[in-house]
Order: sequence, then C-alpha cells, then structure tokens
Amino acid sequence: MKNRVITISREFGSGGRTIGRRAGEQLGIPCYDLELIEKISEESGLLQEFIAEKSEDAPKSGLLANMFSDRSFYGMSSQGYLWTVQKKIILDLARKGPCVIVGRCADAILKEEADCLTVFVHASLERRAERIVRLYGENENAPEKRLREKDKRRSAYYHYYTDMEWGAVSNYHIALDSGVIGIEKCVELITTLY
Amino acid sequence: MKNRVITISREFGSGGRTIGRRAGEQLGIPCYDLELIEKISEESGLLQEFIAEKSEDAPKSGLLANMFSDRSFYGMSSQGYLWTVQKKIILDLARKGPCVIVGRCADAILKEEADCLTVFVHASLERRAERIVRLYGENENAPEKRLREKDKRRSAYYHYYTDMEWGAVSNYHIALDSGVIGIEKCVELITTLY
Repeated sequence: MKNRVITISREFGSGGRTIGRRAGEQLGIPCYDLELIEKISEESGLLQEFIAEKSEDAPKSGLLANMFSDRSFYGMSSQGYLWTVQKKIILDLARKGPCVIVGRCADAILKEEADCLTVFVHASLERRAERIVRLYGENENAPEKRLREKDKRRSAYYHYYTDMEWGAVSNYHIALDSGVIGIEKCVELITTLY
Repeated sequence: MKNRVITISREFGSGGRTIGRRAGEQLGIPCYDLELIEKISEESGLLQEFIAEKSEDAPKSGLLANMFSDRSFYGMSSQGYLWTVQKKIILDLARKGPCVIVGRCADAILKEEADCLTVFVHASLERRAERIVRLYGENENAPEKRLREKDKRRSAYYHYYTDMEWGAVSNYHIALDSGVIGIEKCVELITTLY
C-alpha cells in the first residue's frame, strides 16, 4: 500500500481536527473525521450517536465492564463490533488513496499497512480549556475536568485496542504543541512534510 | 528575559546535536553543546571528562548512591555542585542572547526564565543503532544495549533534577522522529518556527 496517509491523533480541544481538515484542503486530499462516523454507521448499522460516543473513548463506567456487558453482534460486544468495522473502513480508505484521518487509532491500525505520516497534536490544559469554552460553550463541568476526562478515556481506549501508549512521543513522527505553535503554523509544518 | 532560545533534548544517537548545530548556523546564533562543558569546567574547576560523564547521565551504579557518596564541595556532592554551576551557566547564556542549547536539561532550567522553543528529537532503536555504529564505531556492547542504557541514565538524571518526565510529549513544543523525517528536514522545521 503506497498511498501516503496522514494520521492525526490529538488531545481533546487542541485543534487537531481543524489542523487535519486544513492540511487536507491545502494538499487537495480528503480528510476523514466526522465522515468516518457516517461510513461506519452505514457499514455497521449502528447509530451515529453511538459511534460518536464509543469509537474513540473508553466508557466512563469502566472499560472492561462495557466491553463485555452488551454482547449482541455475532457474539461480540457492540463496542468490539464497532472496532472491527472501524478498522476495516480505515484500512479501505488508506487503500483507496492519499488522505488525512483524524483520530480513531488510525496511526496504530495503519502502522504496518500504509505509508503514513503520524502526527500528535497537544496543548496545555489552559489553552485547551479556553478553546473548548470558546467553541463549545460553557458546561456544568469545569472545562479542565472535561478535558482530563476525555483524554483519559481516549488514552484508555487507544491502549485497550492497540496495546500502545497514547501520546507517547516515540509513536509519532511529529508532535506539535498547537497552543504555542498556532493552528496555521501546525498546518504548514505538516504539509511541508507530505 | 526575552531572548529566544532553542533547547534541544534528544535520545542518544538521534542526531539532535547535529540538528542543533545546523539550526544555529542557519539562524546565525551560537549553539552550545560541547562548549558548555568547557564553560562549566572553567567555572567549577571540575575536569571536563567528569562533566561530560556526569552532566547529563545518572551514574550506572545507582543515582542516589552517587548523589550522596562524594560530598566534597561546600557540603554538596560533586554531582550536585556540577548541577548548580551548569544551571547558572545555562541561565547566563540565555540572558546573554539568542542561542541553541543542546541537552543538559536546558528546557527545564529555562522553563520560566526565557522565551524558549523546546524541541525533542528521537528515532527508532534500529535507526539510532545504525547511526552510532557509523559515527562512533563498534563497541564491546551491542549498540541497542548502549542506547537503552544511555537513554535510561539521561531520563533518570532529568527526572531527578527537574521533577519532570524526559521525553513526555507535553514538555516539548515540537518533537521529531529524525529517523523518518531526516536530519536536514528537522533543521528546516525548527528554523521555520524560530
């Protein structure tokens, strides 16, 4: 598989999604993020809301509990089934042509399968808190609490399915602090490497 | 202190020193690496060989054992004394003007003190092993063993003196896999951010 794929893993609120989308636009290649949810829904028959909630984050109530609590698809838990479909779709997309894929463990799924540039985007809690309040508004939980919870769930999910450590520097070809470097400059650096 | 300083932390054999030197050349600012050892020697009266051995790496024989085994300077261990001098020199250099500083915990020392761009350079064990054999020749120990040992000592030293985690993605504005990206491209990305 020789297609060049950019995978973007990101801390919640770091702007990784925006960076991926703009990099795709500038390079003239598709960026899959929310579109992935639609594709997974079509292929799996699962509701988009369920996928959005479960396709990156370990459940709040304990990962293992959930994994085995709702077996309903071919003897798999719905989350296990979702993982299988998600993996297949990401592999298909990478086979189809060059693209950007945001989140969903694409870096680990494509590790041995595609010519990837693996990117990790992060930022300080303060910068991310400011950003999520600006973009998504206030919430009953303090923004820092929401960020910590979301990161923890992403990290647990990633580790469970890939056996790799989320955000470990050695897993990524380039890791960027978007809070210091800025969204536009991150896009520029990534496109330079493509 | 408004001088812009680039700090380069690096895994052993990743080419971080070369990247720092070339970035300094291209930006027309000094790069302090081995020169630091000379300066520390002048200021401290310690032998350059001792500094080279002890100014980044925790001792093989157990960090704590060494820390307290050789008190000889003003009631400090020689390694504690070395740390104090090293810290002062790095702060002085950053005050003097823009520069690149390679290793020696400069990122942590300057965290609150200077306008820094903090860089971490890493690469896979295979790429680094190939590089150190090419540059430094064979050794009685397998290159992978030398790399693991050196990284372990750097990491322990960094953690002991800074209370931060060496190579943790959140500590750096940009982290680069020099084995995949290439030395020249790393230099280009860093100078773009300056």
